[in-house]
Amino acid sequence: MSCYIGVDLGATCIKLALLAEDWKVVKRIELSTADFPKKSLLIRSLEKHILRLGESLKVKPKGVGIGVPGLVDPEKGLIHYLVNIPGWENVHLKKILEKSLEVPVFIDNDVNLMALAELCIGQAKGKKNVVCITLGTGVGGGLVLEGKLYRGTSFSAGEIGHIPLNETGPVCNCGGIACLERYVGNRYIIEKARDKLKQRSSSIISDLIKDDFSRLTPEILSRALKKGDSLAKEIWQDIGRKIGIVLSGVVNLLNPEMIIIGGGIAQVGEVLFKTIKETIKKRAMRIPAEKVSIVPAKLKKDAGLIGAAILVKLEGARRTIPEFI
Amino acid sequence: MSCYIGVDLGATCIKLALLAEDWKVVKRIELSTADFPKKSLLIRSLEKHILRLGESLKVKPKGVGIGVPGLVDPEKGLIHYLVNIPGWENVHLKKILEKSLEVPVFIDNDVNLMALAELCIGQAKGKKNVVCITLGTGVGGGLVLEGKLYRGTSFSAGEIGHIPLNETGPVCNCGGIACLERYVGNRYIIEKARDKLKQRSSSIISDLIKDDFSRLTPEILSRALKKGDSLAKEIWQDIGRKIGIVLSGVVNLLNPEMIIIGGGIAQVGEVLFKTIKETIKKRAMRIPAEKVSIVPAKLKKDAGLIGAAILVKLEGARRTIPEFI
Repeated sequence: MSCYIGVDLGATCIKLALLAEDWKVVKRIELSTADFPKKSLLIRSLEKHILRLGESLKVKPKGVGIGVPGLVDPEKGLIHYLVNIPGWENVHLKKILEKSLEVPVFIDNDVNLMALAELCIGQAKGKKNVVCITLGTGVGGGLVLEGKLYRGTSFSAGEIGHIPLNETGPVCNCGGIACLERYVGNRYIIEKARDKLKQRSSSIISDLIKDDFSRLTPEILSRALKKGDSLAKEIWQDIGRKIGIVLSGVVNLLNPEMIIIGGGIAQVGEVLFKTIKETIKKRAMRIPAEKVSIVPAKLKKDAGLIGAAILVKLEGARRTIPEFI
Repeated sequence: MSCYIGVDLGATCIKLALLAEDWKVVKRIELSTADFPKKSLLIRSLEKHILRLGESLKVKPKGVGIGVPGLVDPEKGLIHYLVNIPGWENVHLKKILEKSLEVPVFIDNDVNLMALAELCIGQAKGKKNVVCITLGTGVGGGLVLEGKLYRGTSFSAGEIGHIPLNETGPVCNCGGIACLERYVGNRYIIEKARDKLKQRSSSIISDLIKDDFSRLTPEILSRALKKGDSLAKEIWQDIGRKIGIVLSGVVNLLNPEMIIIGGGIAQVGEVLFKTIKETIKKRAMRIPAEKVSIVPAKLKKDAGLIGAAILVKLEGARRTIPEFI
C-alpha cells in the first residue's frame, strides 16, 4: 500500500491530509492561515504536522505535494509569489522541506492541482481541452490542453482571475487594472454587497448580519439567496455575469469542451451557474459556445489535496529521488 | 521539384499564388473581394485562377491550401462562417473545389496558417508557446502551444479579436459585445478617427483626405503619424492600448514566450508596438510579462499564402489522396 501527503496552502486556511492510494483522505488537519503572520512560523508548523501525519500509518508516505495560490516554478519547487498571502517572495519551499522532512516534496499552483485531480479522477476524466476556475479569496485558473496540464513558458499560465474585465477600473493585487478577481474575489463581493445594503433597507441580509457589516460574508449572501432575497439574487447574478463575460473570452480563445467551476463561492449553486451559462451563450461565438459544457467541480473541497497527492505519484515516478521511493 | 497553390481569402482582397518548395512565390494573382458579392461567382473565379496558376509550371501542384477569416472545420474542409464576409455559412469548399480541380484542397483559418508559416520558417521557428494576432478588417488570432498549432475542440480556438475589452459596449459582428475587434478592426478605427477629426480642425489628416471623410483609411492615419500629426498619434496610441489590454489577459492566461503581430495595421510600426509593449508591461503579471517578447510578423503580406502552401505539404503527407500525390 502507498500513501501520500497533500497540502492545500490557501489564503484563508491550510489543509493537510494523509491520502491512501485510492486518493481517499485517511487523516486530516486544518489550520488558519491568519495564525501564521510570519512565513518561518508557518513553515515550522507545516513540518511538524507533516511529520505527525506521516507517522499515523505504518507505511512511509511516498512524498508531499503542496498546492499554493500563486506563481510557482514546479521544477525548482520555487514559490515566486503568492498573490493574496504577503511575504512569500522567492521561497525555495521544496528545498527547505526536503531537507527537514527527508521525503520528496513537489509544489504546484493550487488550481493546476485541482485541474490535475479533475482530469485524473473527476469531471474532466477522458477530456482533452478543459478550463478550471476556482472562486474564493482569489480567482484561480488551470488549463488542460490536448489532454495535458498546460503550464506555460514560465509555469504561470491559467491566471483567469487576472484577465481584464474592463479597459479601466480598480487596481488589482497583482498590479493589473480591472482584473476579474478585483470584482469577484470574496472581499470585493462583500464590499459591493455592503455598498448596496447601505442604499437599501429591505433585505434579509440586514437581519442575517444583525446590521453589523463586519459579519457580511459570501456564505451569508448565499444563505440570503436561498431564502429568496432579491438583493442577494441581484448580487450573485452580477457576479455570474462578470465571470461569464471573462469566460466568453476564454471560450473564444481556447474553444474548450468543458469549464469546471470550483472553490467556495461556486457552492452558491444554480443562480450563479445559470447566469454564467446564459452569459457565455449570449456573448461567446456560436460554435465554441455550443461545444462547451459548464459544470461544478466533482471533487469539491478536497480537490486540492487530491491533486497534490496525485502530483507526488506522477512527479515521483518521473523525477525519482532514489533514496525515498 | 514540388509546387503548391496558396489562397488567402480576405475580407478586402483575395490573393492566389503558386509557390515553389522553398516557399517562394513564383506567380501571383490578386482579386478584390467586393467584386464578388455572390459566393458562387467567387468560387468559379477561384477555380479559374487556380487552374491557370497550376498550368504555369510543367509540374502539377501538390494541392491547394486556402486560408479564410472565420470558423472552419479543417478535417471536413467546411467553412462554418466568415465573420466579415456575408453569405458563407456552411460551405463545403474543400469538397466543391476538389471535385472541379481534381487536386487535394485543404482549408484552415487564415491566422492559423499565418501561425503555421511563422512557426515553420518565421519568427516562431523553434519556439514552443506563441500567440499570433493579425490586425486588419477583422482581428484574428492563432495559437502555437507546446510546439504545435492549437485548434481547440471544434477548431475555433484563437479568436483573440473576440475577447471582450469591456463589460458593456458596442455589439460586434460575431454577436458578442465589446469585443476587441469592435474597437480596433479597420472600419472602427476609421469611425473613431472621423469623430475625433470633426471635433478638431488642426490635423494633417484633414489635408491628406482633402476634407472628404470617405477617403479616410488606416493607411492615411499611418501617413499622418509619420508626418508627426498629434491626432494620428493619439488614435494609434489608443488602438495600441486597447490591443495591449486584451493581450495582457492573454499573457496572464497562456504565458507565451512570444506574441507575433501581423496584418495591415501592424505596418504602422513603432508607435503601435511601443504602446502595446508598454501596456502589457504595465498591466500583465510580472513573471509572464517579463517572459514574453512582442515582435512583428516576419513573413508580412505573404504569410497567409506561405502558410496555405505549408498546410498542403503537411496535411497532404498525413492524409494522402493517393491519385494526386
